[in-house]
Amino acid sequence: MTVSKVLLCLDADDQPSVFDSVVALDAGVDHLLRHGGVRPENVRDLAYGLLFTRAVSSLRHSAIFIGGSDAPQGESLLKAAVDAFFGPFRVSVMLDANGCNTTAAAAVLAAGRHVALADAVVTVLAATGPVGRRIVRLLAREGARVRVASRRQIHAEGVCDRIAAAVPGAQLTPVTIDSAAAAEDAIEGVQAVVSCGPPQIELLTADQRKSARGLQVAIDLNAVPPHGLGGVQPTDAGESRDGHVCYGALGVGKHKMKIHRAAIGRLFLRNDLVLDAEEIYALGKEMQHAAG
Amino acid sequence: MTVSKVLLCLDADDQPSVFDSVVALDAGVDHLLRHGGVRPENVRDLAYGLLFTRAVSSLRHSAIFIGGSDAPQGESLLKAAVDAFFGPFRVSVMLDANGCNTTAAAAVLAAGRHVALADAVVTVLAATGPVGRRIVRLLAREGARVRVASRRQIHAEGVCDRIAAAVPGAQLTPVTIDSAAAAEDAIEGVQAVVSCGPPQIELLTADQRKSARGLQVAIDLNAVPPHGLGGVQPTDAGESRDGHVCYGALGVGKHKMKIHRAAIGRLFLRNDLVLDAEEIYALGKEMQHAAG
Amino acid sequence: MTVSKVLLCLDADDQPSVFDSVVALDAGVDHLLRHGGVRPENVRDLAYGLLFTRAVSSLRHSAIFIGGSDAPQGESLLKAAVDAFFGPFRVSVMLDANGCNTTAAAAVLAAGRHVALADAVVTVLAATGPVGRRIVRLLAREGARVRVASRRQIHAEGVCDRIAAAVPGAQLTPVTIDSAAAAEDAIEGVQAVVSCGPPQIELLTADQRKSARGLQVAIDLNAVPPHGLGGVQPTDAGESRDGHVCYGALGVGKHKMKIHRAAIGRLFLRNDLVLDAEEIYALGKEMQHAAG
Repeated sequence: MTVSKVLLCLDADDQPSVFDSVVALDAGVDHLLRHGGVRPENVRDLAYGLLFTRAVSSLRHSAIFIGGSDAPQGESLLKAAVDAFFGPFRVSVMLDANGCNTTAAAAVLAAGRHVALADAVVTVLAATGPVGRRIVRLLAREGARVRVASRRQIHAEGVCDRIAAAVPGAQLTPVTIDSAAAAEDAIEGVQAVVSCGPPQIELLTADQRKSARGLQVAIDLNAVPPHGLGGVQPTDAGESRDGHVCYGALGVGKHKMKIHRAAIGRLFLRNDLVLDAEEIYALGKEMQHAAG
Repeated sequence: MTVSKVLLCLDADDQPSVFDSVVALDAGVDHLLRHGGVRPENVRDLAYGLLFTRAVSSLRHSAIFIGGSDAPQGESLLKAAVDAFFGPFRVSVMLDANGCNTTAAAAVLAAGRHVALADAVVTVLAATGPVGRRIVRLLAREGARVRVASRRQIHAEGVCDRIAAAVPGAQLTPVTIDSAAAAEDAIEGVQAVVSCGPPQIELLTADQRKSARGLQVAIDLNAVPPHGLGGVQPTDAGESRDGHVCYGALGVGKHKMKIHRAAIGRLFLRNDLVLDAEEIYALGKEMQHAAG
Repeated sequence: MTVSKVLLCLDADDQPSVFDSVVALDAGVDHLLRHGGVRPENVRDLAYGLLFTRAVSSLRHSAIFIGGSDAPQGESLLKAAVDAFFGPFRVSVMLDANGCNTTAAAAVLAAGRHVALADAVVTVLAATGPVGRRIVRLLAREGARVRVASRRQIHAEGVCDRIAAAVPGAQLTPVTIDSAAAAEDAIEGVQAVVSCGPPQIELLTADQRKSARGLQVAIDLNAVPPHGLGGVQPTDAGESRDGHVCYGALGVGKHKMKIHRAAIGRLFLRNDLVLDAEEIYALGKEMQHAAG
């Protein structure tokens, strides 16, 4: 018996993600078991369905992907899945609800191609969402000094506190952006800015961006115009504009997709991986090194 | 990487159609992504999951099938899918909810094998449902003069008005059937009659059918007795009865299945097809010619 | 066209069983059509989707598996499926909701490896659940005298009455266990005891078991401690303890899995099998003989 690659797809949305499914198939998965409307209390029995059907020595051919549009719900499902494992009864699991991990990894890798993160100051705009928080976390682990920007001080501080607790030595500064002047201050003197705001909201105008002294890299993850960083185009993938190396949502997305596919492939090499932000970023870094 | 054939199956019913799935698998689809309970507002994100996961040059390997038991809901899903496409970001899509298109195509092709449609008068009974309306439309495009029959005058007129607006030069006559005499009048002097009524309702007795002068072809799409046309058997596939060439629901269905499978196969040849009644009928016609 | 093996999985639970799906894939099924939240009134149309898509000569490549966590609901779905079949329009179908049939078969086969069932007295504890009832039924058919034990007299009698009606000559004694003394009486002088109670409930202490005269085989289907039979370990698969041959839930489960996989494979040999307790037990027996 050849043991096929089975991926259990858990999704909090009623309609499970088609995006996640096609990527998984293109990454070589043989069979998808797709579940929508999944709640944390459903996960144990679903996971047991993988744990108790194949010999422990074959469990690396079964894995779990947690997707969907809602990253916090995805985090709850991930916790429930990991809680279901015991002893050798475990399978590899990846979280990428709303693309939070692959997007964060690709964005930080893009920045790291142009500035030495360990010596850099980086501003993350709209840093309090799932992608923004992960970007801050990854940057902090690389030794960057990070300005964690939000419209509300309390949110920015909350993110800083949580990440400081998780990343020893993290250098984080909460920044409140409640005016044009505050936005300009937030990027003054930084080497890179990453904008993680929602679709159709401009967080920095092109003029603000151009006038920031020392800025080298501008990364915008908002694909729907108006974009987050004025003048940065969605397809930018290292284009130079106004002296800044620019990346747009689609430019980052292309690399994100490669990381996503590679991460799915990796799930089936062992039965004990938990691929969250750090692990997926590390994989992306390996891929970057391998590509030279 | 070999790119597998992925078919996104959208279905308004809570339980997605098994029928549609088996036909798709037998037509060579590698992976089905089956969705039940789909509403028009769900379609864009589901379709995006196809559009943004593969290179544009590979999008012909992804396609959408809209099935289920409810044709009008299927029409809404088709519109939502086509609305989600933009520029080169599109995939081929087929509508066949409740078999409306493949059944209509097979029924009109059956009629056309025995009478020259462009010169014929054809009566469509119970013409106001999804299958009936499509049959009227296809007949009108072939140049037939069509008597559009319903129990209610206003429904028959509504169908005529809508099809006249869509098919330039369509020759349509609304016919109200509110008595046995009206039923007899409706088929007097026509070359073919197609009955599209619901299961277990006889629309014409065998005697009425036999006494219709000039009638050559009788097609009945109701598989559950009492059948729509008295004396026509479900398995009839060109049988001669009382001087009429007869087709029953199963006789038409056999050809319908071949068209359905061929249409699924065609979806994967290009990424820009919209297979609705006319396109599926044209495909059936090609198949008929190819078969000699 | 190679006809692929398609298995329609019907499940009353909202989230269809992952366990059942992985077993089916490992048994060689090519495509699963998985349905959760299935009610008996949904089954006909779903089954028709198999019956009307392939030629009768190919229907053995389509089959139905009824799983999920609720055996009585599974029984209702099985009835609805069989009711949908007519004439040659049928596919093979297997019921194993909550593993009721494969577990019962494996448990009775385990007992039969060590005692001659036709000459034995066997006690079934917590015999009124789906697994317990099936074990009583299979034992009765093998000619064993069965003590049918429950905490409530009326439940024990109900099971006896129903099985006596189904199995001519069945030798059944209802037993009420409402005290420690009653538990001891229930196994006094029997050759085998099978415990079918729920997780975390001990039905017999180790001391009670040890003091039962004549007891040779102790089988416990409760995997979550406290186990049903004191001292029997979940992984026991014929281990000798205190002079008893012991089987625990995992020990029985290993054989159960083999029977489950083999039964799935068998579904695709013909299109007219109904695999319920007796048929699955017979298959397990064949496998045991073949293995020597």
